[in-house]
Amino acid sequence: MDARQSQIVLGLDPDPQRLWPGGTAATGGHTRTPSGAAAAAVETHCRAVVDAVADAVVAIKPQLACFERLGAPGRAALGRVVDHAKAAGLLVLADAKRGDIDVSALAYAQSLLGSTPTPFGTVDGLGADAMTANPYMGVDTMAPLLQTARTNGAGVFVLVRTSNPGAADFEDLELADGRRLWERVAGRVHELGVAGPESGLSDTGAVVGATAPEHVARLRELMPTTPFLLPGVGAQGGRVQDLAPAFAPGRAGGLITASRSIVNAHTAAGASPDPAGAARVEAERLRETAWGLA
Amino acid sequence: MDARQSQIVLGLDPDPQRLWPGGTAATGGHTRTPSGAAAAAVETHCRAVVDAVADAVVAIKPQLACFERLGAPGRAALGRVVDHAKAAGLLVLADAKRGDIDVSALAYAQSLLGSTPTPFGTVDGLGADAMTANPYMGVDTMAPLLQTARTNGAGVFVLVRTSNPGAADFEDLELADGRRLWERVAGRVHELGVAGPESGLSDTGAVVGATAPEHVARLRELMPTTPFLLPGVGAQGGRVQDLAPAFAPGRAGGLITASRSIVNAHTAAGASPDPAGAARVEAERLRETAWGLA
Repeated sequence: MDARQSQIVLGLDPDPQRLWPGGTAATGGHTRTPSGAAAAAVETHCRAVVDAVADAVVAIKPQLACFERLGAPGRAALGRVVDHAKAAGLLVLADAKRGDIDVSALAYAQSLLGSTPTPFGTVDGLGADAMTANPYMGVDTMAPLLQTARTNGAGVFVLVRTSNPGAADFEDLELADGRRLWERVAGRVHELGVAGPESGLSDTGAVVGATAPEHVARLRELMPTTPFLLPGVGAQGGRVQDLAPAFAPGRAGGLITASRSIVNAHTAAGASPDPAGAARVEAERLRETAWGLA
Repeated sequence: MDARQSQIVLGLDPDPQRLWPGGTAATGGHTRTPSGAAAAAVETHCRAVVDAVADAVVAIKPQLACFERLGAPGRAALGRVVDHAKAAGLLVLADAKRGDIDVSALAYAQSLLGSTPTPFGTVDGLGADAMTANPYMGVDTMAPLLQTARTNGAGVFVLVRTSNPGAADFEDLELADGRRLWERVAGRVHELGVAGPESGLSDTGAVVGATAPEHVARLRELMPTTPFLLPGVGAQGGRVQDLAPAFAPGRAGGLITASRSIVNAHTAAGASPDPAGAARVEAERLRETAWGLA
């Protein structure tokens, strides 16, 4: 982050119906199955987006659902997008939001952060540097993710208070002790983490929606050394300038994710009609705004 | 369920290190990548398990993590296992435990229950008859799953009170109104569902762990027409005979899942050393016990 002076994470949520023109054109002439052709187009699109904004961001955050819906070719495309981003010097956060009982959680960790031993040799996972996780089922469902992350020099970001309106349904419920559910989850996330000797930051992060900036200061109080992954800027209504409390432990305390606002920047009024150029301008604008806050 | 006189769901959580002997032997000699060879072995194993117990069960419940960790070949193997189960007349419940913001939830629904429109044609999803979902992020993250399920004649099972010890961490928290979080989630799941005209059962199910039978009666009170998916029998300690309240709205009100207790039945003391034979005996024992309860 220091080298790039950036805290921006590029979200990749490719919709085959809304790809940059070049991506579709490059593969449209091939004779393939729909899933193969769509996965190839998605891959071309994602590579182009990464190339356009790589200098302004520190990581990509692929939304796994968007690749999974394209079947086996989608998974293969995801792997190549991840490799492309890594070659550009970027970190990879797998936006998976997984949570499951111990043996299944371990399988997800092997899939995304580690590898799987088999009688036929070791099967490498996606090689992500971090994944997102859902806390609903409890600490024993997060522990295998954290253990695998630590073995592989990776991290886990646990959903705490998310950016969608539905966060009010359960996350915001008041508990018998007067706290909100998200405050209780925040406390457990703080306890689960181990702070690194150099950065002082925990190896267990939290997903904290940028659409509820009134909570960011309280969450920082509950999780003083936890890196926050802050989705919801742009298309969902969050504003970078409202997130200053996230950066209390230093600039690396807050990672700001943006996807549609960058990828679709060329559709905004007054923007360049060139998707790559407009994306670069928007990513650079976000980078500069965020870096100036801390 | 009536035709088969069974409420048993076969969980498929294949570990490449613990496959039935035939599965490994059948593919071990091929020259392939580790992921390709492991996925082929997992597929052979799962087909053999399905063939062994198909007459005693109504559905399979593949644990998606176990296939995802084998990469693109794992996803292809999953698709073929699903097709094989359907050809045997079984339903398919994708154990995915997904939950994400609206556009991403839609992508997961397309991936598992529906299909994805692309400029290259429609990409078919997995074709599951139901999927499991995580409620933490709220109702707006479940709505796209339910909508897609309804369009495709499928269903959704929402995690309510799970079978793992960690369920105590958040699901069991007491709220300000004196209820537990799982009771609140149960109420919302009841509201979300629409009861079918013939069965009288809701199209929105609930995952209710068989390891906490003391909660089953209360959950049935809160969700009178909701189908319960009941994991935790066998390896996790739950007992079929403790689940009678689940069947109050009829036998189809409770689906009992078992995986390791069936697949590894041949390792139990006194069991047949033949994996398929032992699995068939155990699945039939579960079927008979459950059918006799309602």
